[in-house]
Amino acid sequence: MVLQQLGIAAKQAAFELSQSTSKQKDFALNTIADLLILNSDQILIANQKDVQLAKESGLSDAIIDRLLLTEERLKTIAKDVLNVMGLKDPIGEMIDGYTLKSGLRLQRKRVPIGVIGVIYEARPNVTIDIVSLCLKTGNAVILRGGKETINTNTVLIKIIQDALGRTDLPANAVQTITNPDRKFITQLLKLDRYVDMIIPRGGAALHQLCREQSTIPVITGGIGVCHIYIDETADFIKALPIIVNAKTQRPSTCNTLETLLVHRNIAKQFLPMLSQIMAENDVKLHANEEARAILDINGALVELVTDIELRQEWLSKDLNVIIVDTLTDAVEHIREYGSGHSESILTRNLINAEKFVNLVDAAAVYVNASTRFTDGAQFGLGAEVAVSTQKLHARGPMGLDALTTYKWIGYGDDLIRE
Amino acid sequence: MVLQQLGIAAKQAAFELSQSTSKQKDFALNTIADLLILNSDQILIANQKDVQLAKESGLSDAIIDRLLLTEERLKTIAKDVLNVMGLKDPIGEMIDGYTLKSGLRLQRKRVPIGVIGVIYEARPNVTIDIVSLCLKTGNAVILRGGKETINTNTVLIKIIQDALGRTDLPANAVQTITNPDRKFITQLLKLDRYVDMIIPRGGAALHQLCREQSTIPVITGGIGVCHIYIDETADFIKALPIIVNAKTQRPSTCNTLETLLVHRNIAKQFLPMLSQIMAENDVKLHANEEARAILDINGALVELVTDIELRQEWLSKDLNVIIVDTLTDAVEHIREYGSGHSESILTRNLINAEKFVNLVDAAAVYVNASTRFTDGAQFGLGAEVAVSTQKLHARGPMGLDALTTYKWIGYGDDLIRE
Repeated sequence: MVLQQLGIAAKQAAFELSQSTSKQKDFALNTIADLLILNSDQILIANQKDVQLAKESGLSDAIIDRLLLTEERLKTIAKDVLNVMGLKDPIGEMIDGYTLKSGLRLQRKRVPIGVIGVIYEARPNVTIDIVSLCLKTGNAVILRGGKETINTNTVLIKIIQDALGRTDLPANAVQTITNPDRKFITQLLKLDRYVDMIIPRGGAALHQLCREQSTIPVITGGIGVCHIYIDETADFIKALPIIVNAKTQRPSTCNTLETLLVHRNIAKQFLPMLSQIMAENDVKLHANEEARAILDINGALVELVTDIELRQEWLSKDLNVIIVDTLTDAVEHIREYGSGHSESILTRNLINAEKFVNLVDAAAVYVNASTRFTDGAQFGLGAEVAVSTQKLHARGPMGLDALTTYKWIGYGDDLIRE
Repeated sequence: MVLQQLGIAAKQAAFELSQSTSKQKDFALNTIADLLILNSDQILIANQKDVQLAKESGLSDAIIDRLLLTEERLKTIAKDVLNVMGLKDPIGEMIDGYTLKSGLRLQRKRVPIGVIGVIYEARPNVTIDIVSLCLKTGNAVILRGGKETINTNTVLIKIIQDALGRTDLPANAVQTITNPDRKFITQLLKLDRYVDMIIPRGGAALHQLCREQSTIPVITGGIGVCHIYIDETADFIKALPIIVNAKTQRPSTCNTLETLLVHRNIAKQFLPMLSQIMAENDVKLHANEEARAILDINGALVELVTDIELRQEWLSKDLNVIIVDTLTDAVEHIREYGSGHSESILTRNLINAEKFVNLVDAAAVYVNASTRFTDGAQFGLGAEVAVSTQKLHARGPMGLDALTTYKWIGYGDDLIRE
């Protein structure tokens, strides 16, 4: 297998990285931040090539915007590297420890995971982002970026290699798969002898590919079919800005609201208010029969929502509206259609709030708050590796700790097991 | 897919279980323990059928011993259920919580994982063991036991169902795949819509099958190619009993010593002592050229060890002996041949001890202690779900916590993200 050499080199680099000090790692991050600014002209020229090619290939404005770097954006990226540098190094933490009856003195020590494989799409900032998170936690990384960013990434990786060369850290701490052939993704997913963890950062199809093909543990997530349930006891005036925020602040994100569930008893009063504010915010509504009957009084031309639409992210200013009979029905709807990302209840009733929080099985469940809060920075984690919607290892926004594991260390005075 | 109905039923049961109280779960466990004793005749008769069939099929004495239940063993199994019942329920624990600048009051609450799939081999005690661990933590379980235990398991499952029927817990909390066709294992591994976690409890081939086929996160482990490195500063008299314990206390377990690494400077003095004590304990030695030259002085007829033998578990009273030049070489050997399970150094030198602990990447690393300590009970975890040799979610012996995940709960006073 062609990628085997990459795997062997990464594993060796991970071994060396696991022995590096916080000071060495921080120096490397500082150097990367410096070189990003020093070489900004070179980066922006390469990025312009990618943008030009993207335009010629007819890629969407949204993708081109994700691809585009500016002097300002580059400064932000360099600042983010310094931010990660400033975080507390989790490696070496004694998680817990105790002395057992046998006399064994046992400790759990936080250590790097080893080698992380990251597969991502058009955003060049992810390259720097992931590299800084992995270096901070002493992990080696194999990157496979989108082919749309090939020119930008080539320069970024050169800068990272340059920075590594100026420090004591191994050059193979960061490696890339530059060949755009998708067969190398599949090969990476099978490198279980060398790679300890796969993080896909992209759409649903990429996550599914990883789940199906990988023999390495995968962190799946990033897909958010998020709901807000507005209870009959909700304060409408307070509820509306939350719904607007959850839907419109940044519609392309995974923590954006997709479906609003409205209690039947308040539908006639609340939906006309919703219709007006959504029109003011250019949000298009899709509704079930019953909700549509009320919403269309205002001539809003509301479309009938389909079952498929209820199961997917709009990633745009579109909102589904469903009338439900009870809180239990709202929970049932979320069980059937939710992706386990972020769910919220708007209510003034304490019992209903607790019932919703207990019954809904999602990474993040809110009471009287926008679903937009599900984010590493908003959660105070300092950085975000990814948002996990699976339940093993890490759930929800993943901070630096999610790039670590632990080692049990047992000290004995010449101890045997009885 | 035939198993889909099982998946749907398990997911519904998991939803109900997640709302159950500690009292309800403990009552179910107590009932299972009672019914095991009350129905012991019926269980032992069914078990005799399995044992008879196993003998007729010419299965090994080791497998038949694993299969065999006696009145005494059944009492131990029932006692183990009561032991799990007596553990603290991890569900509902507030792991941490804080108020963010935005005003969001965030908590992390421990919750069940959901549906666990367990694939195991000939041990009928695993059926009860896994069921009690899953029920205690509010998880539904789909069991796929070995076909050798089909008669015993059928009775055990009837008893568990009977116990569930006498409580408020859902009957589908525990389901089994009774059809011995191996294609149902593959089907189970693809049920990612319903099953949240797969735990294989068996040999290397089963773990590999799960890694390759599963679209569900798998906890791999249980394979132990464990080493002891005896440093030149070791106390020989103290070292020998540790080596004997690690190799002979229960040779079929995964935390058993497979390869002893001996520092060159002490080989001439130490190996003859080793040879003698190993002969006394019926341990057969396999050695590299150099070690053999010393060991065969006693006419021990030591075999030359092969590369393949160094990579596998003996599961018997066989021990590999390798001479290494330095501690670094010992670490290199472990990096190449170890399975990341349990590794130990015997030394009187503090610097060497710390160096070994830091350089060796394994679930458990020991100083002057037997590798046999890697075990849930020995680690004070109260119970053992499995021993993980992968690095995500859980590493080493897994206690009840490893059957849980967490949910982020955010309370706001009508909060929007700025």
